[in-house]
Amino acid sequence: MQVHAQRFYTAGPSDIAGLEAAVADGTIPPDRIVAIIGKTEGNGGTNDFTRELATVALAQLFARHTGETRAEIEDRVVLSFSGGTEGVTAPHMLVLWQSGEALAEPAADKRLAMAVGYTRAFSAAETGYSAMVEETARVVRELMAQARIEAPEDVHLVQVKGAIPAYAPEEADAAIAAGRPLRSDMVHSRGASALGVGVALGEVDAARVTDDAICRDWSLHSGVASTSAKPGLQRSEIVLFGNSRWWDGDLRIAHGVMQDIIDLPAIRGVLDALDLPCPDGQLAPESGDRLIGVFAKSDADYRHRIRGRRHTMITDDDISDMRYSRCVVAAQLAGVTGETAIYVSTRAEHHGPPGGGPVAMIARCA
Amino acid sequence: MQVHAQRFYTAGPSDIAGLEAAVADGTIPPDRIVAIIGKTEGNGGTNDFTRELATVALAQLFARHTGETRAEIEDRVVLSFSGGTEGVTAPHMLVLWQSGEALAEPAADKRLAMAVGYTRAFSAAETGYSAMVEETARVVRELMAQARIEAPEDVHLVQVKGAIPAYAPEEADAAIAAGRPLRSDMVHSRGASALGVGVALGEVDAARVTDDAICRDWSLHSGVASTSAKPGLQRSEIVLFGNSRWWDGDLRIAHGVMQDIIDLPAIRGVLDALDLPCPDGQLAPESGDRLIGVFAKSDADYRHRIRGRRHTMITDDDISDMRYSRCVVAAQLAGVTGETAIYVSTRAEHHGPPGGGPVAMIARCA
Amino acid sequence: MQVHAQRFYTAGPSDIAGLEAAVADGTIPPDRIVAIIGKTEGNGGTNDFTRELATVALAQLFARHTGETRAEIEDRVVLSFSGGTEGVTAPHMLVLWQSGEALAEPAADKRLAMAVGYTRAFSAAETGYSAMVEETARVVRELMAQARIEAPEDVHLVQVKGAIPAYAPEEADAAIAAGRPLRSDMVHSRGASALGVGVALGEVDAARVTDDAICRDWSLHSGVASTSAKPGLQRSEIVLFGNSRWWDGDLRIAHGVMQDIIDLPAIRGVLDALDLPCPDGQLAPESGDRLIGVFAKSDADYRHRIRGRRHTMITDDDISDMRYSRCVVAAQLAGVTGETAIYVSTRAEHHGPPGGGPVAMIARCA
Amino acid sequence: MQVHAQRFYTAGPSDIAGLEAAVADGTIPPDRIVAIIGKTEGNGGTNDFTRELATVALAQLFARHTGETRAEIEDRVVLSFSGGTEGVTAPHMLVLWQSGEALAEPAADKRLAMAVGYTRAFSAAETGYSAMVEETARVVRELMAQARIEAPEDVHLVQVKGAIPAYAPEEADAAIAAGRPLRSDMVHSRGASALGVGVALGEVDAARVTDDAICRDWSLHSGVASTSAKPGLQRSEIVLFGNSRWWDGDLRIAHGVMQDIIDLPAIRGVLDALDLPCPDGQLAPESGDRLIGVFAKSDADYRHRIRGRRHTMITDDDISDMRYSRCVVAAQLAGVTGETAIYVSTRAEHHGPPGGGPVAMIARCA
Repeated sequence: MQVHAQRFYTAGPSDIAGLEAAVADGTIPPDRIVAIIGKTEGNGGTNDFTRELATVALAQLFARHTGETRAEIEDRVVLSFSGGTEGVTAPHMLVLWQSGEALAEPAADKRLAMAVGYTRAFSAAETGYSAMVEETARVVRELMAQARIEAPEDVHLVQVKGAIPAYAPEEADAAIAAGRPLRSDMVHSRGASALGVGVALGEVDAARVTDDAICRDWSLHSGVASTSAKPGLQRSEIVLFGNSRWWDGDLRIAHGVMQDIIDLPAIRGVLDALDLPCPDGQLAPESGDRLIGVFAKSDADYRHRIRGRRHTMITDDDISDMRYSRCVVAAQLAGVTGETAIYVSTRAEHHGPPGGGPVAMIARCA
Repeated sequence: MQVHAQRFYTAGPSDIAGLEAAVADGTIPPDRIVAIIGKTEGNGGTNDFTRELATVALAQLFARHTGETRAEIEDRVVLSFSGGTEGVTAPHMLVLWQSGEALAEPAADKRLAMAVGYTRAFSAAETGYSAMVEETARVVRELMAQARIEAPEDVHLVQVKGAIPAYAPEEADAAIAAGRPLRSDMVHSRGASALGVGVALGEVDAARVTDDAICRDWSLHSGVASTSAKPGLQRSEIVLFGNSRWWDGDLRIAHGVMQDIIDLPAIRGVLDALDLPCPDGQLAPESGDRLIGVFAKSDADYRHRIRGRRHTMITDDDISDMRYSRCVVAAQLAGVTGETAIYVSTRAEHHGPPGGGPVAMIARCA
Repeated sequence: MQVHAQRFYTAGPSDIAGLEAAVADGTIPPDRIVAIIGKTEGNGGTNDFTRELATVALAQLFARHTGETRAEIEDRVVLSFSGGTEGVTAPHMLVLWQSGEALAEPAADKRLAMAVGYTRAFSAAETGYSAMVEETARVVRELMAQARIEAPEDVHLVQVKGAIPAYAPEEADAAIAAGRPLRSDMVHSRGASALGVGVALGEVDAARVTDDAICRDWSLHSGVASTSAKPGLQRSEIVLFGNSRWWDGDLRIAHGVMQDIIDLPAIRGVLDALDLPCPDGQLAPESGDRLIGVFAKSDADYRHRIRGRRHTMITDDDISDMRYSRCVVAAQLAGVTGETAIYVSTRAEHHGPPGGGPVAMIARCA
Repeated sequence: MQVHAQRFYTAGPSDIAGLEAAVADGTIPPDRIVAIIGKTEGNGGTNDFTRELATVALAQLFARHTGETRAEIEDRVVLSFSGGTEGVTAPHMLVLWQSGEALAEPAADKRLAMAVGYTRAFSAAETGYSAMVEETARVVRELMAQARIEAPEDVHLVQVKGAIPAYAPEEADAAIAAGRPLRSDMVHSRGASALGVGVALGEVDAARVTDDAICRDWSLHSGVASTSAKPGLQRSEIVLFGNSRWWDGDLRIAHGVMQDIIDLPAIRGVLDALDLPCPDGQLAPESGDRLIGVFAKSDADYRHRIRGRRHTMITDDDISDMRYSRCVVAAQLAGVTGETAIYVSTRAEHHGPPGGGPVAMIARCA
């Protein structure tokens, strides 16, 4: 069993020509595609319609080749588009598919393994509370087993598209009256999902993850979570990546945690772990082709400081701090790797320390 | 004779408290200040009033301490504020002053040397044409001699605030009719200034700098120029920095040229030249205090490509590519140096190759 | 023969639910739809993908109901989406369809008439030059005849999506060398289209429309043109609206020209022409239902002045003057009509005097 | 005793040339100036430094002419600058000064009267709570008496710059623990100030203004308040305008309340009250000179609807809804009055109904 990954640079959110050609010539079997992760050139906010446009275009592609409806595709394949290609970021999509059968016995070396799953549906009252953390943790553990990843240290990236169930205004009022206001919002959904990942992998002590601690005690965080949230989503979608001796192929994954937004050494550490050398500070071009995917979470430190110095990302009312922080992290990743197809998504509650965030990379073995 | 430099982090464009204190306690003699170079938190565009606010505040400071008027100060001291502290950039100002006398004979080691001067006044018809290139080159050579910098290779940064004389509409019409349209605009003023620097230092072949080549033949460029332009300015102001054996003190300067906007190795090269080590990819904290000033020019490649991959900085109609390119370059400089008081200014016509640009740093000797 | 029009308020660029229902219940015959004109909530600029998303959604609707492909639909139906719902503007689409047969003889009263057509394909060298003006004028006259509109005064709105043929860099260089630089750009395409409308209807003296006058002599303008331009389009698409005694139904159209961006009396004049009373300054609610479509062109006066007073729409580098001018004109139209489904598109070269622009409205007869 | 007012159009935030000339030639006595109300071309947000720049320039003017320090001026003269000249708004300042003595007995006609005052200092715990409402109401009543305005109906504009005392984090934590979280923020300060005005003038029933109702029960509102808030301000500054038979001069004031953001009839009502005719929908040019000041509050309706139709001002993550709402209201005011020197400030908690807001105008008598 192996994971394959191919990166396509796109000319616009609806550009699926590269994937179309790869499907047409048999390189990529559309029915074995498990995830498509991409950056589109929107603003990443409420009025970003580029993600929908990309999804519609891909749904049409699948309809042509597998006959599946858009709903079926959204159910079977993880479509994870993040709007915002600030600065150097090249719009692109990474297509992941699987082939082969499970190994009869473990190999000597670990290779990229993955699994996809879903939590149960959440009620609005559970979202952003401990119940969401626990259920997320349960599924993460299940996916780890399913992917036959033996140790938590072998998990390097857990992407969660978190649930945000809709609710009636009366439900919100009743919750306030009951002293337990709804947290069915982006911030709490992302935060609870990230803590769920952290609890499952032992990064976070489950006993400390009380309702009060969620989105408040920032000393609790995961270094491999990458969570978003989607209004209207009932259950969370989870893709887990790690390395396992039960998978073959030639891909591996590693991660690190930026302790603040200029923690370039953390980026270098990930490349080191993948045996990707950086003479002169940048990945040598001859090794560049080995780097397949770069994923990071970013945030402008809410304390308005980086290493004690003032930053103005949050006080700039003309440009969102989300756009700045994505731009900053992508620039450093591109500077170190020489590659601009970087997936940085923003808002990183309980993802690494405040102002920092996880970085993961998938690379071909030398 | 030596150059001193002190960096002040500011709480806002009008924050001069740090300098005020340093003047009050005698650390910095206000009458020996020759240049103040800073970043303020505006947008760097037409409606950026933060530079004016900083200038007004500084003029009041000088008025209190030296009795000079604002006009006298703007004439004597180079006030170079660049709006736009995108991303990680910390608003700050670097104050440069001089002390001591010229050395009787050259020392063994070169130290930071500088000189300030002005071109003659330009007519609108000359601006952006060869006449501006030549006069700029003449003054650059003069300043080099004045600073007793012996070789062009020892010049590492030439900041020019370029003239843009006003003109009457009739003058513009007459110029078009005569087949030689006015170039009294930001683009051509910056471009001609940069070529003037390049010609003076032998980076650019004077014979190739025809009127047609200005802002068209991008193969011509300087690696040490840093030019801006100011509508209404009659003559260009020039500050030249280099290393000379005729100066003492403990500062040195070096530079490099980013070949594209993600040329992190070029940044590393400058640190190497200043003996500033980067174990793990970032300047070690214990060496960080030695780094006094970081200056760069940025631009989003007009060909919409970085190493063959698409970037969207120019096609984003919500955020100016100027803000993006400053953010990108500052992020990489901060990532490598660990310092966020970075001076990046944008629009880099004939400053290094298209999409790239010069980087200079001033550091204390070990 | 009559024109029918129905307005649908949309919940997003891809929201076609209203039209879908109207088609499903037989209210609107999809094969008789001739134009869909709408506002989507993008920025109206290069990176506005909302128009594409709306088009894709409509193409899927037609595919389901008429079996036509997207190319067939884009060829048969004028899809005119303008991005940018600044300020009060409600995202919406206006669907226009036809029914019935040509009248045997003219009626006593004029009713809304329309015709759709195309210019021949333009070369890049023709675009923005007199050739484009002339061909546009020819088609406008043809459409007038086709719609059986007897007098130029009865034409009230001519929407043109203007051609901008692609070209090779060598073609551009050759054109410059030949002293006739290409004008295959948005500005010149829109300007030439508008002048074509003006020439056809006698608003502009054809003799004065020299190549030099295009996008330079702003005293030449049409009061009924509404032109845009689309890179890659080979031929211009034209929809002409007017009143004719050869059409029946209950719709009528009228127009006026704002002399500057605050010419509210011009707006009032259009309502007067349609017998829509404004007691207290605003269309009375009981008459509001009669107003079906409101169309305008906007521009921030390039002279930075409105009635002698400074405006800052152009010097604001944070927000495009296009967004401001649309917001301003829509606000006034909404203030006078009480309706927020307003179609304002921007950039109005040769559309009314500089800083002003045409306003047209379609209303049901009392 | 009379109030004089003169409007100056400005070329930039620091442009005080007009006032300087008027002071120099004796037209305006600087020591009798009581208020300067203006619009500057910033973004009206956290990083808007245009207000500070205007204040610094005015302080220098006063220093030259009256010898007062900036602190003295800020204490004696109400300097009320609002950033954001969106759309048609002309940057300008309105200077108000007084002359003469109190009338011995009331005149037949009422004329513009005004008074300036301050609340006591607030603690952080009081801000945004009933205590602030009550103290504001007390001072408003006092100013009404001081200005000899006899009936609440004669008060037409009460500008409040509301206090926002600083506080220690511990104070905030203790307040949360005590079940009474601090409201020392912009929203609550503005809201409490507006309710204070409403209570003083009988617009709002004091009994209904409980702590819970502040910034929650939007059915409570004032039609003459115009409140802002300033972090760090200890006491609120209040300027009250009305008409009184105890004042002479030739100025009068009137107001109306826009029930939603497109309530143009409310604007017309204010002009009617001042006998300013609008043939064709716009104030006739010959009457235009009589209009001296136009003041309004704006807000994008938080329910995302205007008369049942969707607006996108709040879901647009590229441009702040504050900028949109100011642009919209200013456009309509300019359309009706023909004047672009309009003072619209945004965020209008408890100022008229949600989505609407007060409009006041000062005009010369015919």
